[in-house]
Amino acid sequence: MDIFFLGTGAGMPAKLRNVTSIALKLLEERGAVWLFDAGEATQHQILHTSIKPRRIEKIFITHLHGDHIYGLPGLLSSRSFQGGDSEVTVYGPKGIQEFLQVSLSISQTYLKYPLKVVEIDEGIVLEDEQFLVEAKILDHGITSFGYRIVEKDRPGTLLADKLMDAGVPAGPIFRKIKNGDTVTLEDGRVIEPSEFLGPAQKGRIVTILGDTRSCENAMLLARGADLLIHEATFSKGEEALAFDYFHSTTHQAAEIARRAECKQLCLTHISSRYDKTAWKELAAEAQEIFPNTDIAEDFKEIKIPYK
Amino acid sequence: MDIFFLGTGAGMPAKLRNVTSIALKLLEERGAVWLFDAGEATQHQILHTSIKPRRIEKIFITHLHGDHIYGLPGLLSSRSFQGGDSEVTVYGPKGIQEFLQVSLSISQTYLKYPLKVVEIDEGIVLEDEQFLVEAKILDHGITSFGYRIVEKDRPGTLLADKLMDAGVPAGPIFRKIKNGDTVTLEDGRVIEPSEFLGPAQKGRIVTILGDTRSCENAMLLARGADLLIHEATFSKGEEALAFDYFHSTTHQAAEIARRAECKQLCLTHISSRYDKTAWKELAAEAQEIFPNTDIAEDFKEIKIPYK
Ligand SMILES: [Zn+2]
Ligand SMILES: [Zn+2]
Repeated sequence: MDIFFLGTGAGMPAKLRNVTSIALKLLEERGAVWLFDAGEATQHQILHTSIKPRRIEKIFITHLHGDHIYGLPGLLSSRSFQGGDSEVTVYGPKGIQEFLQVSLSISQTYLKYPLKVVEIDEGIVLEDEQFLVEAKILDHGITSFGYRIVEKDRPGTLLADKLMDAGVPAGPIFRKIKNGDTVTLEDGRVIEPSEFLGPAQKGRIVTILGDTRSCENAMLLARGADLLIHEATFSKGEEALAFDYFHSTTHQAAEIARRAECKQLCLTHISSRYDKTAWKELAAEAQEIFPNTDIAEDFKEIKIPYK
Repeated sequence: MDIFFLGTGAGMPAKLRNVTSIALKLLEERGAVWLFDAGEATQHQILHTSIKPRRIEKIFITHLHGDHIYGLPGLLSSRSFQGGDSEVTVYGPKGIQEFLQVSLSISQTYLKYPLKVVEIDEGIVLEDEQFLVEAKILDHGITSFGYRIVEKDRPGTLLADKLMDAGVPAGPIFRKIKNGDTVTLEDGRVIEPSEFLGPAQKGRIVTILGDTRSCENAMLLARGADLLIHEATFSKGEEALAFDYFHSTTHQAAEIARRAECKQLCLTHISSRYDKTAWKELAAEAQEIFPNTDIAEDFKEIKIPYK
């Protein structure tokens, strides 16, 4: 489970920061990559990474501003020519369906894989055996979602050697124990699964927010997250500007991470008014409030370890 | 009058060739840049050039395939933030209006300049004092236009010194002579304008074609052009493949340039199946038929001199 930043700029592409796209690499977990937003040239950025477009399984759009969606038609089209034949689901605000339908049909693009588009509301967007994704609306003028990606806890691994040492016969009994069932053997012995399972693995939580002013829903989505990715379009002191443009400052992002008791914060959606020499300062501003803060850069990767 | 290649690849972006966009720089002529097609990340390519987005005056779309239009919404949006306040006109096939309208409105993009969209048919697309642009439909499955850009001849410059030496009084008479009128002076002398004008400057002709099979309309648009830009998606010998995919080979492009008696040919829309080492060979194939052939690369510039 790694976060990989494909684009970390605000509004327009700049030489050092492309417009927004964030990959959540779930290669070990499910052989898949999930994208959050796909600004223009996201597929170009991917060309310079090890990410295989055919691995892209789900794309979550935070909001419909151009710098978050204009790369979507090209990315989906090219995936057809890059060995992509498995279904892709795009989740996003109302309007994403029409944008994709018109873009793909006017260009006479026929995808070689099934494309599902889900226009979402607040609530649970997706739940399967491994993950639960919840969305809430932030404060950005246009409908902008934040996503809380919750990995489910995993039961401990079966200690097969220990079972065999105890003379338990391999077979269907192992599966029962793995599932947490208490088993009575033919010789009358009772096997408590807890003795033969490693420690359960707590799932991880990543929160990825769309553009937003500082808001309560950001805090709710971020509660206890291992990693919060929060926009910081502006530096501290620019709160009035941030408010006017429906964005946040470094301090505001850090304050959310602090209140939500996150483990780590990464700032992104950095305005091009801040050149490379200023980036460290932006991170330092946030660190005054939330020490474990980093600032995103294009092609930066963050590994999210188990707890 | 210079051609500047912003993207020269086919179908999908590749590391060394972006998808199609060609700039016709008319800086001396009218302080403007015209674009032909705007594949995804055209605005990113422009970031690495001296082209000012605010100078972009007209955008001609050859056809609606994604690799020729997906960069248009982003380019137009960003121009608003890059000092662009003058009108932009987009010319293209039926459908371009809906694509732009939906893309810009769903993303709530409000341009700070007037945008005119003209859905064109074959014929004269544009005519003003300096230029005439004519379009014809090529052979690409989808409606694909080729454009013939004709610069009008310019009358010779007025030889003011020579007029003054001849004792002709400066003033309104100069303008008449400049306009080619014969003038009778107060002293009865007759001034023939041809004696007091430098040589007239013949206008130049550039032909830029959309994707196409080899076709007669390509030849008609290219007749006598100073520069023909013709796609060559495939190498010679791949004529069957080119036919199936509605594209051309190097030999077919060269044959059009030869028959149309062009001065120069530049091949573009090169498939990514040909890596850098093969490009010279592709040009050489065309040179067998039309010696003055070049192969386009991203960021290549071709100056078009006066005749
Ligand atoms: Zn944004
Ligand atoms: Zn094409």
